Amino acid sequence: MPHIDLPSELPGISAGFAFRPETAAPMRALAHVLLFEAGAHAEAGAHASLSSRDRELIASYVSARNHCYFCQTSHSASAAHHAGGSYELVAAVCGDPETAPISEKLKALLAIAGRVQADAKSVTPAMVERARRHGATDLEIHDTVLIAAAFCMYNRYVDGLATWQPRDERMYDEMGKHLAAHGYEQPSMANAR
Amino acid sequence: MPHIDLPSELPGISAGFAFRPETAAPMRALAHVLLFEAGAHAEAGAHASLSSRDRELIASYVSARNHCYFCQTSHSASAAHHAGGSYELVAAVCGDPETAPISEKLKALLAIAGRVQADAKSVTPAMVERARRHGATDLEIHDTVLIAAAFCMYNRYVDGLATWQPRDERMYDEMGKHLAAHGYEQPSMANAR
Repeated sequence: MPHIDLPSELPGISAGFAFRPETAAPMRALAHVLLFEAGAHAEAGAHASLSSRDRELIASYVSARNHCYFCQTSHSASAAHHAGGSYELVAAVCGDPETAPISEKLKALLAIAGRVQADAKSVTPAMVERARRHGATDLEIHDTVLIAAAFCMYNRYVDGLATWQPRDERMYDEMGKHLAAHGYEQPSMANAR
Repeated sequence: MPHIDLPSELPGISAGFAFRPETAAPMRALAHVLLFEAGAHAEAGAHASLSSRDRELIASYVSARNHCYFCQTSHSASAAHHAGGSYELVAAVCGDPETAPISEKLKALLAIAGRVQADAKSVTPAMVERARRHGATDLEIHDTVLIAAAFCMYNRYVDGLATWQPRDERMYDEMGKHLAAHGYEQPSMANAR
């Protein structure tokens, strides 16, 4: 049972968002930029920016390491529904990025994300150099660090309130489909129920 | 030296904000609501909502536990410059909330914040009940959880990029004075240099 009186029909972060719209708005906006929007940053050509699939994989990986069921499951579903994504791929990445069928660049970025999750000071210049050697730009390294940091917030928010996190694969799959198509600025289907 | 090419004259999070304005805007907005705005939430009467001093104390406490020098020092300065704040008070709270000269309600909320920082799933109903017994509202418990979660993001962002964090007490004191007076929506003085 949630620690505070949250709307009982809303799962996970949706319940916190409904309880406190003033904080929901910037939290949604941040997720939308980090996970959904194409890199509009001056540095990034279209090919230089991480795909939404890759950014959702980073979010899933960090959420798995934080053992946040709601975030891991919903962002895994979103990653699976983006171009080039699948549930098998997400499982491989969350299991061990180094053996997953992904680019060397993404492996190097996931290694950085894992360090940010555990202890951000433990990211080393050698790890950043490895990512750069495989083509990562400063923007991609920045966004990797911030996605990992942001999911250390979202995960703690969801679990620290003891939100309702139903075991319902179809619900998460539908949520992931919606998120992959529309992003984070508007409440997802789970929110509208 | 920062892991990526950040503006060299800007300390801590200001450098990340300048590098990526698209993510800075929602991150600033979230801090402004959580730390500065009076509780405009329907539930909260003026007396029921945590003061900015108390919210900054939670931010300082979590940043201290994450060993983030920039965040701890700047939010400690902000807490000290709010009504009822002082550097001695912040030091006492960061040392041990249970023996600090603060209300029983704030002690109970800081205990929750500490758990969210370490492992959000470890917040227990008994800890929440303790806060409630001392007058904490659902909104105050919600905001405590989210402030603690959000500083697990801000701290990791600052340290994961290896930002420049000068040892310059006067700079942080000026920054804290500015933040206590104006909040987080606009770049602080450190940003405008």
